[in-house]
Amino acid sequence: MDNNHKMWSDLGMNLELHDQLCEVLPQAFGDVFLSQENRPESMDYYNMVVADIHGIRPAELIEHQKKGGKVFGTFCIYVPDEIIFAADAIATGLCGGSQFWVPGGEKVLPTNTCPLIKASVGARLDRTCPFFRIADMYIGETTCDGKKKAWEILGEDVPMHVMDLPQMKRAKDIKAWAEEIETLKDTVEEFTGNKVTAKKLGESIKLINNKRKALERLYSYRKNENLPISGADVLMISQIAFYDDPARFTQMTNKLCDELEQRVKDGVSVVPAGTKRIMLTGTPLAIPNWKLHHIIETSGAAVVCEEMCTGTRYFENQVDETKDTLKEQMQALAERYMQINCACFTPNEGRIDDILRLAKEYKADGIIDVNLKFCNLYDTEGFLVERALKDAGIPVLGIETDYTDSDAQQLRTRISAFVEMLNN
Amino acid sequence: MDNNHKMWSDLGMNLELHDQLCEVLPQAFGDVFLSQENRPESMDYYNMVVADIHGIRPAELIEHQKKGGKVFGTFCIYVPDEIIFAADAIATGLCGGSQFWVPGGEKVLPTNTCPLIKASVGARLDRTCPFFRIADMYIGETTCDGKKKAWEILGEDVPMHVMDLPQMKRAKDIKAWAEEIETLKDTVEEFTGNKVTAKKLGESIKLINNKRKALERLYSYRKNENLPISGADVLMISQIAFYDDPARFTQMTNKLCDELEQRVKDGVSVVPAGTKRIMLTGTPLAIPNWKLHHIIETSGAAVVCEEMCTGTRYFENQVDETKDTLKEQMQALAERYMQINCACFTPNEGRIDDILRLAKEYKADGIIDVNLKFCNLYDTEGFLVERALKDAGIPVLGIETDYTDSDAQQLRTRISAFVEMLNN
Repeated sequence: MDNNHKMWSDLGMNLELHDQLCEVLPQAFGDVFLSQENRPESMDYYNMVVADIHGIRPAELIEHQKKGGKVFGTFCIYVPDEIIFAADAIATGLCGGSQFWVPGGEKVLPTNTCPLIKASVGARLDRTCPFFRIADMYIGETTCDGKKKAWEILGEDVPMHVMDLPQMKRAKDIKAWAEEIETLKDTVEEFTGNKVTAKKLGESIKLINNKRKALERLYSYRKNENLPISGADVLMISQIAFYDDPARFTQMTNKLCDELEQRVKDGVSVVPAGTKRIMLTGTPLAIPNWKLHHIIETSGAAVVCEEMCTGTRYFENQVDETKDTLKEQMQALAERYMQINCACFTPNEGRIDDILRLAKEYKADGIIDVNLKFCNLYDTEGFLVERALKDAGIPVLGIETDYTDSDAQQLRTRISAFVEMLNN
Repeated sequence: MDNNHKMWSDLGMNLELHDQLCEVLPQAFGDVFLSQENRPESMDYYNMVVADIHGIRPAELIEHQKKGGKVFGTFCIYVPDEIIFAADAIATGLCGGSQFWVPGGEKVLPTNTCPLIKASVGARLDRTCPFFRIADMYIGETTCDGKKKAWEILGEDVPMHVMDLPQMKRAKDIKAWAEEIETLKDTVEEFTGNKVTAKKLGESIKLINNKRKALERLYSYRKNENLPISGADVLMISQIAFYDDPARFTQMTNKLCDELEQRVKDGVSVVPAGTKRIMLTGTPLAIPNWKLHHIIETSGAAVVCEEMCTGTRYFENQVDETKDTLKEQMQALAERYMQINCACFTPNEGRIDDILRLAKEYKADGIIDVNLKFCNLYDTEGFLVERALKDAGIPVLGIETDYTDSDAQQLRTRISAFVEMLNN
């Protein structure tokens, strides 16, 4: 038994079922990423991360646990990783992005639930993902109906702390979120046995801010006329950001950015001149969901930006680094996180402002509004988003999809037609 | 033009479209209600209310407005009518219960939205319900994803105040709800020009408590071995409770209760001895949604209780009448309303306790867990509810349905089989 299988066995995973996922992933990765031309050399790091996605990082997390450290699993970008790292614990994103995990979720969840939630629950209950087995405690949140109630079921199988995310953004709500962050801190301290001091929290705020800055820098190169990197590659990097070691990720991403900066100077473009620029907006694309980027970027267009949890919503806005008391730091965290414009908030006009702003910054020729099937929040908000885009004269295509490949052909047809329209 | 059509025309309604609804309603009502045998005489009042459902009460609301009064439309039993009546305004429930209104909602809402929400939006945008035209302001709430985002669209067509219902029930959440109630009070005062005093609020608390007591009394007769009234009739009464004049409704319902009390003494039963007793739990049945009760009660069973917004969740628990300062009264309101166990709260174990308790009190032989299509909250919670019922040895049938009649036959088959099973 190789090292990975030994590790997975020790984690109590369903080896047989998990092997089926392991078999198909390399092909999927090759089709989407290795088929691309002129990828930056620095992509080697991320290739390696994904190639051994259920090996390398899980092994590191286990090493951390062997030294007495804790691992927290998260599902939402509103959850402040800073608190977790400040307690010398590790935060790892757990959102599922493959149809492979969906049937496991459907054993306990309604079929009419978004595939991301079904996959997340399925990955745990079917024991087919090492990250889900490793995490000592999961942090849930009251964001959408599906997740809110899924935690009640998932929480019977794994220790779970649910944060009560507000539904509006008044001053009292920002204050309430600061209190939720404080409650998270108390839980994390108790669970880890480590105190979160102002000093440590200040350090972890810088740690995560630096990761944000690296991603912001990465995205900035996509604002150029010439695109030095593909959308698919940036998506993969954004996805990896959720669970890789923050310091290492920041370092490797800045290294990539140095390469991209040179490419920009040299006028290198990974797509032909005149390639139509598409921005995506909507629901997140959890790893290994690469379907849309692949279809778009093999249909004669390029994805230049993602206004998504796996995209700008993840890294925009820094946490104020000037605070040095715990109370002020947690208020600063609340203020930064509450600037994320997710559709679970009402009203959410800030998102429309973001989309219009980003469309301009990234010189988008058109926008694809992506909706995970059964995500009622983004679907309903989509009415307002698409109307605003039409009013602004920006071409928009609304797409609803799930994790299966059954609609790939239909999507390709619609996206090709959209790109064709942009080209005329 | 008859009086009703004149009124509807003045309200800016789509007369032609609305007439189509008016044509089918009497038949539907007759099929479900007038076909029943040995109905209490006091049902005459409710028959009359429904027979002229878009005439009588709307005319009263308009009279009120002519005298300078305001009308508020509501969509959720967490919204405290007491505040509205204390400002000499009138509260009217607005939930839509017919497929007739759904297409209108689908013009702006995702198809994958529960029909109640689509019908509610459709009734307004299509101008096919006088109540929706009359209400000067709507009160929305952050309960489910669908409603939360629908208000953003509906609020462009009518003045709307959205209350931020908490998602948990900690002490801080009850306090937060009291604050939301105070904010509602401020809005209602400003909109009506009338002050809500402790005296007036005390009176309206009694007014609405009395309505609750009348419904509680009505339901109590269904705990008997002999059922003096059908489930369909009680459902209709529960639905009317949402929009009829509270004092008159209370009076007429107590009058009915006197008759039922006599029936109980006389051993009168509207169903044969040994008829299986079914309790419903789940999503609400807004007027004129009578489908399930009709199928169940023409399949050899009787509906003895509804653990629904249109049922026990509406009237259980009184507001403390002993408070005489505004602050204490609003805290008392918050405490009473937060006892409602809706699936939009997490956790919601209190609902399972309620269901088990009610199953016992109403001597239910079986329970049907009813889910409106696309209601993810109740559907997901249904997993926990049905498991608890199985553990308690109570037969349960899970049903998902919408507002169409396309599944009527299939439902009848499944329900008949369920009743058959209970009979063996």
